[in-house]
Amino acid sequence: MATHSDPRLLDTAQLEAVLAEFARVRDWDRHHTPRNLLLALTGEVGELVEIFQWKPDAQAEGIMNTDEAEHVRQEVADVFLYLMRLVMVLGIDLDDAVRKKIALNAIKYPPKTEC
Amino acid sequence: MATHSDPRLLDTAQLEAVLAEFARVRDWDRHHTPRNLLLALTGEVGELVEIFQWKPDAQAEGIMNTDEAEHVRQEVADVFLYLMRLVMVLGIDLDDAVRKKIALNAIKYPPKTEC
Amino acid sequence: MATHSDPRLLDTAQLEAVLAEFARVRDWDRHHTPRNLLLALTGEVGELVEIFQWKPDAQAEGIMNTDEAEHVRQEVADVFLYLMRLVMVLGIDLDDAVRKKIALNAIKYPPKTEC
Amino acid sequence: MATHSDPRLLDTAQLEAVLAEFARVRDWDRHHTPRNLLLALTGEVGELVEIFQWKPDAQAEGIMNTDEAEHVRQEVADVFLYLMRLVMVLGIDLDDAVRKKIALNAIKYPPKTEC
Repeated sequence: MATHSDPRLLDTAQLEAVLAEFARVRDWDRHHTPRNLLLALTGEVGELVEIFQWKPDAQAEGIMNTDEAEHVRQEVADVFLYLMRLVMVLGIDLDDAVRKKIALNAIKYPPKTEC
Repeated sequence: MATHSDPRLLDTAQLEAVLAEFARVRDWDRHHTPRNLLLALTGEVGELVEIFQWKPDAQAEGIMNTDEAEHVRQEVADVFLYLMRLVMVLGIDLDDAVRKKIALNAIKYPPKTEC
Repeated sequence: MATHSDPRLLDTAQLEAVLAEFARVRDWDRHHTPRNLLLALTGEVGELVEIFQWKPDAQAEGIMNTDEAEHVRQEVADVFLYLMRLVMVLGIDLDDAVRKKIALNAIKYPPKTEC
Repeated sequence: MATHSDPRLLDTAQLEAVLAEFARVRDWDRHHTPRNLLLALTGEVGELVEIFQWKPDAQAEGIMNTDEAEHVRQEVADVFLYLMRLVMVLGIDLDDAVRKKIALNAIKYPPKTEC
């Protein structure tokens, strides 16, 4: 079980530096308010979901072996990038938040006992 | 500008190992199909968005200084954790996907020229 | 095929009158901005989706025969009510919008020819 | 206050008949499972939200006076049409669900007393 005192699970420092500079040179910081980013995140989740909306489970599971793989990768990246920008503008330590949440989940959902 | 040959921006290896084990000991892998995870991701985005739905921008920007900060951190973590599980079951290299998408965005949205 | 000159498909006049009064006596109009309502809509879609996230298709199809039926009805109503409030604050004629969209869809997706 | 014994607030009978026939002649019923429709609904909400994601509140409020009005109307219609298809495949009486939910909301959120 992961606990808060465990070593870091996630390192996003380089990404955050790149995204901060990316926004700065485009004068995007004033657009990247929490509510704008939440709407943008919702929009990107919508685009990702649309790829899968009519696909049976077996087809969805095999999608990375098709010519839609690159599209999926791009939409997953878009969702993640807007989430990271939200994390950044809110000043959240994502690694810390993730470790605490995993620790809470571990209590809420104990592992199945194996007999 | 970030390009595909740049060094990694993101390291999720430890997190992926922890999440894989977390799911394994709970027998969750059979539930973590791409479409189930997309619905779960949508649900968590909904929970995150609800925190902000009636808040004016100034209040949204200051939310991490209020007693709702922990709630925000938990919902951000939930969104990210389901996105990571989707990344894992689809076999996506998130760092690679992110670097390629940033490179595409850099072409699509050139920086403002500074005179 | 439905066209713009067809009779109305949808009558929401009574509902709109009730919702307008409901908001008025609660002083909610100032909160019901388009962006607030879009975030609220996203939140309610999240709540609706969560009911179905871990259910196989057969279980999802039979959900109205279970004790989750009332929950589904309430979340569907919540999604619809926020969409109606958005329609109202934007001054959209939903029946007109729906008929035009059906006409566009009919052109975009011609019926399968039956031999 | 609306109660369950009140007259109908909403009439969708004609729309449901048109949508049923629209799906039938395109052989779409087998694709319109609850989970597919929920993913499609999420996708359309994403498309609607994207129109508003970078707009300040004042601009969002005036959008129907711009050349984006028709786009908004189409996306609102798309969200509503997938919600109606979900209502249809689940066999929900939307008017009944809406009246019950409004009655619940009236109890949960009593009107402000006016002095």
